[in-house]
Formats: sequence, C-alpha cells, structure tokens
Amino acid sequence: MASAPICLKETPPSTDCHQLACQIGKVIERVRESAPHVHSLTNLVANTLTANVLLAAGATPSMSDAHDEVAAFVSRADALLINLGTLSTYQKESMGLAIAAANEAGKPWVLDPVFVHFSPPRLAFARQLIAARPDLVRGNAHELASLQSGAASGKASAALGDEDTCMLAARSGAVIVRTGAEDFVTDAERRVVICNGHPLMSRVTGVGCAMTALLAAVRAVEPDGVLAATSTLAWAGIAGELAAEKAAGPGSFQSGFVDAIFRLTPDDVSGRLRISI
Amino acid sequence: MASAPICLKETPPSTDCHQLACQIGKVIERVRESAPHVHSLTNLVANTLTANVLLAAGATPSMSDAHDEVAAFVSRADALLINLGTLSTYQKESMGLAIAAANEAGKPWVLDPVFVHFSPPRLAFARQLIAARPDLVRGNAHELASLQSGAASGKASAALGDEDTCMLAARSGAVIVRTGAEDFVTDAERRVVICNGHPLMSRVTGVGCAMTALLAAVRAVEPDGVLAATSTLAWAGIAGELAAEKAAGPGSFQSGFVDAIFRLTPDDVSGRLRISI
Amino acid sequence: MASAPICLKETPPSTDCHQLACQIGKVIERVRESAPHVHSLTNLVANTLTANVLLAAGATPSMSDAHDEVAAFVSRADALLINLGTLSTYQKESMGLAIAAANEAGKPWVLDPVFVHFSPPRLAFARQLIAARPDLVRGNAHELASLQSGAASGKASAALGDEDTCMLAARSGAVIVRTGAEDFVTDAERRVVICNGHPLMSRVTGVGCAMTALLAAVRAVEPDGVLAATSTLAWAGIAGELAAEKAAGPGSFQSGFVDAIFRLTPDDVSGRLRISI
Repeated sequence: MASAPICLKETPPSTDCHQLACQIGKVIERVRESAPHVHSLTNLVANTLTANVLLAAGATPSMSDAHDEVAAFVSRADALLINLGTLSTYQKESMGLAIAAANEAGKPWVLDPVFVHFSPPRLAFARQLIAARPDLVRGNAHELASLQSGAASGKASAALGDEDTCMLAARSGAVIVRTGAEDFVTDAERRVVICNGHPLMSRVTGVGCAMTALLAAVRAVEPDGVLAATSTLAWAGIAGELAAEKAAGPGSFQSGFVDAIFRLTPDDVSGRLRISI
Repeated sequence: MASAPICLKETPPSTDCHQLACQIGKVIERVRESAPHVHSLTNLVANTLTANVLLAAGATPSMSDAHDEVAAFVSRADALLINLGTLSTYQKESMGLAIAAANEAGKPWVLDPVFVHFSPPRLAFARQLIAARPDLVRGNAHELASLQSGAASGKASAALGDEDTCMLAARSGAVIVRTGAEDFVTDAERRVVICNGHPLMSRVTGVGCAMTALLAAVRAVEPDGVLAATSTLAWAGIAGELAAEKAAGPGSFQSGFVDAIFRLTPDDVSGRLRISI
Repeated sequence: MASAPICLKETPPSTDCHQLACQIGKVIERVRESAPHVHSLTNLVANTLTANVLLAAGATPSMSDAHDEVAAFVSRADALLINLGTLSTYQKESMGLAIAAANEAGKPWVLDPVFVHFSPPRLAFARQLIAARPDLVRGNAHELASLQSGAASGKASAALGDEDTCMLAARSGAVIVRTGAEDFVTDAERRVVICNGHPLMSRVTGVGCAMTALLAAVRAVEPDGVLAATSTLAWAGIAGELAAEKAAGPGSFQSGFVDAIFRLTPDDVSGRLRISI
C-alpha cells in the first residue's frame, strides 16, 4: 500500500484505492467459500448477535467456554475470538486455555478489550493477554489508551492518537484496529484509515463485538492482518450504511445489518469504500 | 397530582393530564440529553434486549457481574438495575456488592423480582433485597403478592390489589410499579394508573425486564420516583402500541418496539397517554 | 401411519397425508390453547430466541438453572428441555437435578445434544443422559452418529443413516428426530420423513435449538412422540418457508420466522406439508 493517506472523501479515487476495493471484495468471497470456524469466548450480551453475524458472513461459530472442552473446540477451529465484555473468573481461565491451544496450533486469535478503561482488574488481565501475542486487537480510542498506559479512569479516560496506536502495535506485535467515527488500522508501519459506517451501529449492543468476531473469521482466510482488518471494517461499515438507509431505528437497523453482511457484493465495496492508505 | 383518578379512556382529558403528558415528554428528552449510564445485573435471557432498549432510549448500558469489578462499574454508573430472572449463587453475591456500592454512593437502584412466586429461595432473597431499600420495585401482581406475603405458589399465587400495593410501598419505602393490562404506580400516598401498552409486549421475552432497566435510566434523571415510573410506563406502553400497529407478529414487534423507543416524540405522548391520576 | 414412504413432493397427496396434516393443525391449536410451560436448560447463545419461539407458539418459558430452584421450576412446568450447547460444570449438575425432577413427576423431557461430535466430554455426558431416558432426542446426523458410536471427530464425524437412527431409537427408548435437508423421525418402528424448511434456518443461530424447545412444548400436549415431532417439524419448517419468502437475509428472516410461528394456520399446514409416511 502507498504511504501517503488519500481519502476517497476528499480526492478522486486513486488506482491504489480501486485495487484495494477489489482485494477486499475477494477477501469477502473467500470467507463465504471457506466457511471458517471461529471459536468465540465473548460476553453474554453480544453472543447471539456475534453468532448471527458470523453465520451471515458464511462463517461457523462455536462458543463453549467449559474448561474440559474449550481446547478441543479451538484445536478444531480456524480462529479464536477473545472478548472481555462480561469477564468472570471462570471465563478468564477458559481464555487462558483457549489462547494456549490457539498459539500451540498456530491459529490466529483476536482480542477485544471491551470497557477495560472502566475496570482496573479487567485492564490488568487484558495487558496479560497482550503479552500472549494476539494477532489483532480491536478497541475504541479509550480502551486502547488504557491498554497502552495501564490507567482505567472510566468516562474520563484518554483517547489514543495515531502515533501512540502505532507504538502499541510495535510494542505488542499485533495489528491494532482502532474504531470510532473514523477507523484506523496499523501494524506499526502501514496505516489505513476507513471512513465507512453509520452512527446507528453504536446504538445496537454488540455490533462492535460482532465486528471483532468477523475480524477473526476474515483473518482465518487472509494472513495479512492489515488487509484482513481493512476488509472487515469495509464489510461491516458498508453493511451498516446500507442497513441505516432502510432502518426506522436501531431495532430494524439490527436485522438489516445482518441482512447486509449476508448480501454485500464486491460492487457495494467498490462503490462505497471510503479509505485513506 | 390530583387525588381523584380520572382515566383518559372514559372522560375528556383534564388539565392535569395535559400537564403530566408534557412533563413526561420532558423527562424523555432529559434521558436522551443526559445519556445516563445504567449498570444492569439481569438475567441471561433478557440481557441483550435490555441493553438495546437502553441504547435506543439514549442511555448507556454495562452488565458485568464479576465480583472484582462490579463495584467499580456501579460507582461510575448513574443507576443500578437488579433483575432476578436467572439468579445464580455467584450473581446473588454480585448483587450484594452492587447494591452496597449504589447505596454508599447514593445512586438509585431498581428491583425486578422476576418469577419470585415460582421459587421459595428466590423469594427469600428478594425479600432481603427489599430490606436494602430499592428506590423502585417493578413486578406483576403475582410477583408483588409473593413479595408482600412471603408465599410462592407458582401459577396459583395470589394477585396483589391496589390497597396492598400501597401497603407494600409504605412498608418498603420504595415506589411500587405493578404492571399488567393496567399498570399501577404508588409511593403509598400518590396513585397513578396507566392504561397504555399492547398484548404483544408479553409475547416477546424480556420486554418487561427491559422496561425495568428503562425505569432505572429514567430514575437517574428524575428524582421523583412516581413521575419516573409514570414516564417509563408511558414511554414503553406507547412505543408498544406504535410497534403493534405495524407488526406481523412478535418477531417484527420486537424490532419495531426498539425503533419506537428510539423515535417516540412528546406529541406521541400527548396524543396517546391513557392515565388516571 | 402407512409403512411405505410417500413423499408429497413426488406423488399426489394421499388420504393418509391429508389426515396427518389435519392432525398436525389440531396439535398446533392445542399448544396455543393449553399454553404449556416449558422449563429450558439451554445454551447462552440460543436462550433468547428459544424463549421467543416458545412465546410465539403460545407456550410459557422459564430458564433458571440455579441448583436451589431448578427442581421447583421443573415440578411446576409441563415439559423440560435439555440443550448441551454451552455446557458448564454447574449446568451439568442443574441438568441432573432437573431430569430427576421431571422423571419423578412423569413430565416429558427432550434432549438436544448440540455439537457432541466436537467434544469428547460433552459426548460422554450426553450418553449418560440418554441412559436417563429422554422422551425425544433431536440432533443432526453427525451429532446422532456420535451419540450412537461414542466417537467425536469434529467436522469429520460420520452421519447417521436411517437404519442406525432406528437402532438408536430402539436402544434408547426415545423418539429420535434427525434434522437436516430432510428431517427423519422414528420410534424404531414408525418412520416419517419431512421435507419442509429453508436453508436460511441454518443461517440464524439457535433456530434448531428453539425448534427442540418447541418440540418439548408440543410433546407436553401430545403424548404420541412421533406425532409430536412431526407436528413440530411441520410447524417450524413451514414457518421457515413463509419467512424466507419475505426475507432479505438472515436478519429479517429471524423476525419473520418468529412471526410465522405465531401466525401459522391449519391451512398453511395442509397447503405446504411435504412428508413421507
């Protein structure tokens, strides 16, 4: 990818951007053809939407966190999702077992450090997980700032800027995906900004969590973490835009979002991608 | 409020009722502007709809019940919801920690004693919680009768009448919200009857539970518990009516209900409120 | 029922098939009139859709798995569902208590051995439960093959054929319901093949799980397990077809499916039943 950011919102689409849109379309097709199996240890609020987004994307979800079977599930899966949204003592141990199984089998795994800026013990656990080397980490600017600094100040937490996000990528070895009004992806060297999406996505619980699960599914078929993340953000963001155009509110938006994940075409990507590379 | 009940269904709207509709519209706007954070310890069936109704209303949900972080979440929240729908030993302890944190910080908390009439140990626990002085309790006539009497007889349980509901309010110090075909709110002195709502609301799991969470969000911005409860019942009941008009069954009703919570206007309240004060 | 399979897809409807469609319509009406209470110990991903399908069908769900109250719930219920989708040590014990209460009170119970082919300890537990004599077992061909053979090989697991399915029914004493593109029901002697349904049903998480809960509700009002299973598969399969005709993807399909469970008429059954008896 080019090093100079060029946002489609401001400039005519470049050849590089056209090529990237085409690559993204192919990544999405590959998920649908390969049907990757994603084992997800996630929170009790987002679990159903997470499974439904994976199924709509063509992936296969499983979700057991029982200590006596979680390693068996991970070893039969193609990728692992770890989401800290409703973390219990039991689930912490499940996550340790699952990550060990994934690392041993060379399966990619993705971390979603939900709400770490609200809870010091959760933040401490998340920082331990970073040391176990996730392939990707997806969070908002506050969650990632807490991961980087080690401080959890609730609503008053700092937001992580671009340079610090790159430092977090360098330090952790993970591709970092910072989501918000604009999404930012970096592996410490390359940087991509995605401007797709819609505000209704943050009015439905679990949309961000489900997106991180989708990231695991995409990473299972695409080893370049930056391309995997860019493809996921484009897929979900454009699906969100399409759903929002038909929605009467967050309730109808949710089912429309799942429909749009299912139906999204390469043409939707080419026609709507808003990106800086 | 006036002491003589005047139901809008039967009589021309009184000046008092017009004023109340106007007050309710303003309470709803205040929730949307203040975005209160409600920490919810609720059941595993209703948690997603609960979070989605809070988000649609403009509030912010969090839901962790881990013993090492629940107090941190409550101390950063604006109100607390306690719902007994799928009570575990672990969650009982979480609830004790959460209520202590709420009471210490002076944050309002709301109790939903789901299905206490079916389970003697759950009823005993609910009665302990009443002694910790919730600001509001929302239940149906059977649940509240069990709370008042201490007897759990399943389907055969008695229903709590108006006078006994007022006695429960007096004894507990809480505003009692008894929901059913007609809803009844009392702080032992004032009494309000709300006649909004639709039968499809009881054909979708978690609608009542989500309504109690909404009550916590409203109470966070409105210290008068009777007005907070009246506003919540009007918001949810009128949203239910609007959703039912467009629904083909409980599936489409559910997403339409969330949409209507999101979209409800002060004019919807004025035009549809059915109330006795 | 006749012993020679006659599929409505291929031949003109026989008198027997007309009679069966009529019987099924009456079973569905009986569920709506009797409102059976189904206590469901199910997985954390399917619990909400399960409750919503039960409510849409006219049944009443409850879902507590607390050790100190699960027997009280089962003894007040009309049937029990046991689903192994996200099995925990705690829930295993809950299931033992619930099954003992159901067997003691003579209440029917139904087993859904989700994903047993992926997890040896889950499979071992499922085989223990079979020995406690469920009235019905509902699984796909891989899950049932693992139950029969005792081997859990993940995606590579064998699929159970018709003769082995009948052997499993004979050995277990349960009516076996094998679901897939074509559904197969047997009590070891009688055999029914149902060809209703739509591929979108497997693109929404929990549809199969909810269908097993519906089976428990139907079995609560219909003691003939083969007729109960046939009625359930027809109800859910035809509802799936009706929902798929209006759906734009799995999101809108899900709410349409719940609507169609709620609205399905005897005429829908007569006009759409695809069956071999």
